[in-house]
Amino acid sequence: MNRNDSHAAKAAAGIRWKEMETPRLLIDEARMDRNIAAMAELARARGVRLRPHAKTHKLPSVALRQIEAGAKGITVAKVSEAELMAAHGVSDIFIAYPLVTEGKLARALELARRIRLIAGVDSLPGAERADRAASEAGRTLEVRLEIDIGFRRTGVPYAEAEALAVAIAGLPHLRLTGIYTFRGAQLNGRPTLDLAAAGAEEGALMVGLAERLRARGIPIADVSVGSTPTAAYAAAVPGVTEIRPGTYVFQDRMQAAFGVCGPDDCAGSVLVTVVSRPAADLAIVDGGSKTFATDVQPDVPPLHLRGFGRIVGYDDARLVRMSEEHGMVELGPDAQAADIRVGDRLRIVPNHICSTVNLHNQVWMQRGDRFEAVPVLGRGLLE
Amino acid sequence: MNRNDSHAAKAAAGIRWKEMETPRLLIDEARMDRNIAAMAELARARGVRLRPHAKTHKLPSVALRQIEAGAKGITVAKVSEAELMAAHGVSDIFIAYPLVTEGKLARALELARRIRLIAGVDSLPGAERADRAASEAGRTLEVRLEIDIGFRRTGVPYAEAEALAVAIAGLPHLRLTGIYTFRGAQLNGRPTLDLAAAGAEEGALMVGLAERLRARGIPIADVSVGSTPTAAYAAAVPGVTEIRPGTYVFQDRMQAAFGVCGPDDCAGSVLVTVVSRPAADLAIVDGGSKTFATDVQPDVPPLHLRGFGRIVGYDDARLVRMSEEHGMVELGPDAQAADIRVGDRLRIVPNHICSTVNLHNQVWMQRGDRFEAVPVLGRGLLE
Repeated sequence: MNRNDSHAAKAAAGIRWKEMETPRLLIDEARMDRNIAAMAELARARGVRLRPHAKTHKLPSVALRQIEAGAKGITVAKVSEAELMAAHGVSDIFIAYPLVTEGKLARALELARRIRLIAGVDSLPGAERADRAASEAGRTLEVRLEIDIGFRRTGVPYAEAEALAVAIAGLPHLRLTGIYTFRGAQLNGRPTLDLAAAGAEEGALMVGLAERLRARGIPIADVSVGSTPTAAYAAAVPGVTEIRPGTYVFQDRMQAAFGVCGPDDCAGSVLVTVVSRPAADLAIVDGGSKTFATDVQPDVPPLHLRGFGRIVGYDDARLVRMSEEHGMVELGPDAQAADIRVGDRLRIVPNHICSTVNLHNQVWMQRGDRFEAVPVLGRGLLE
Repeated sequence: MNRNDSHAAKAAAGIRWKEMETPRLLIDEARMDRNIAAMAELARARGVRLRPHAKTHKLPSVALRQIEAGAKGITVAKVSEAELMAAHGVSDIFIAYPLVTEGKLARALELARRIRLIAGVDSLPGAERADRAASEAGRTLEVRLEIDIGFRRTGVPYAEAEALAVAIAGLPHLRLTGIYTFRGAQLNGRPTLDLAAAGAEEGALMVGLAERLRARGIPIADVSVGSTPTAAYAAAVPGVTEIRPGTYVFQDRMQAAFGVCGPDDCAGSVLVTVVSRPAADLAIVDGGSKTFATDVQPDVPPLHLRGFGRIVGYDDARLVRMSEEHGMVELGPDAQAADIRVGDRLRIVPNHICSTVNLHNQVWMQRGDRFEAVPVLGRGLLE
């Protein structure tokens, strides 16, 4: 089969729109590819490495596409995700999470025999556990130190980072090669819309720390920063070496509200059916909180998203309330005039695509007028 | 193998506490069995049939256990869930959801060849679709009419129910045998703590409607009501024939806050590990919004739950914030005094067990000091 035949076969695979059941999570492949290319180009232009967070898609095939487009490797949060991605051919993985249980450390060390595997550390007790596990495995584990620059999540507090880095650099079975942080669109301990300021500060804090650590003899090679909203600005700071955005691969309503992308860059949407029209201003669709993630709630600052998703084509319709399998869509005057009926389909762009993907057993990759099921292999991998 | 040997083999299966990885969802089997028995006894005492909603557990083995304890059949929300349960031997299933797509109706009608299958309807356009599908399949489909008594979800508005029931009863390929509703702990359009009043009104409204329908010649056999919070009160109303509670099988923090159960009746909890202690008043655990459901948010009336779960054994520790894989646990003075360290484990009872189960690939059934993985076969079945 030559290249053209293969392409034709691929285009013909899958089912058509009218054969689609609901609710299903659609991924517009052309938009996804455009998002992948755009972030790869951004990283190239800024002279930083790109290590996308695979939590967004949990799809090995998409991780490989990101790498093919120029990503150096990928980021994951869990050992189980790393194992999955390695099994599908990803050979450079950063588990950006402090591994502290014996079981997870053993699994990470086992993986490190086959691929480049970097683990996160953020405390001396945690690092000592990793050091002990590496010693027992007869190996050296490459680690990066996580720094908290104001998100109050994992990460050693910024002011304590130097002392901890020195202590970790002294552990015999760990090799400290980098520092990393995640803060997202935050500034001064609060969510912000000033992404330029947030990204610039993020980069500057981390580069400054890296320089102080190098001055103390710790050879910090990687200064890793950047979420989807701040990646462009953090990457522009000289001395930053790597960005780790995740959401950009599909983008979503939250990122569009941040101004990171336009509505037409959102590759993910959920196809639902109207199952009931109990009142003029109310349509019930067959997706609820088991179909749309609820971790990004409506009306929360700074974005003040209205509802749990954007109803494509109906500007004054809002997914205002959900139970597990029901979505309550409030219809404004325009949507009421559109005569939405039982059996009609709607497409809804979720507020947060990462946690929404994790609710679905498969995504439906849209190529032209065909849809093909791709199993979300990393779904529910929590360990 | 005699009965005692079998019991011993079962007890010895699984792994021990210290071998458990995190995060994992534990189900205390003895508590679950107690909850199953208690609801079965309540239904027997009130003289109503019990048809538990399987959305909570999504486990065929648990559905069979509910039936063994006395349930007449089960309730599900999706055709795909019905197919799964039927494949595992459940022979009486109510899909309490309006089926309106051709594909789902065809699948339901196919199932109806093998088991007793009842579908929900709540509108004339929806019922006409079901009637057409049944006609094409050459069958009659048993249906129940869903009534909205104030939840503003699916369900025909109460005032319009009689006229719609008459119309549906006239459709040749549908057999209207019952009416059903779901309102949960609501009264006058608002969440309420007055479960007795909510359940009594729920029952009275539905029984009154059933009597009016019978007077018009529609032989309503089933008057089906009752959520976990209102089941006991709704079941006490003469004329109610069936209750459909779901959450009771595991109970959860929300139900405990309603006073429906005690904290020691909660069978489900998530085992997590403390991965970081970045500040005296903060512990980070390895479960976030992909481990704990976020559909029941903290601080919402009428329950005003504090945080996303109850930290067992630490009354002033609160799971106040989550990102996808991180849980931020704020420690009060007592929890701080307890010297919680990196690597320590915590057990957290989630606010809402139903949507939490759906996040996990397996639950870990606890029998004595052993834990056995049971795959959540219904997880992510959205169609």
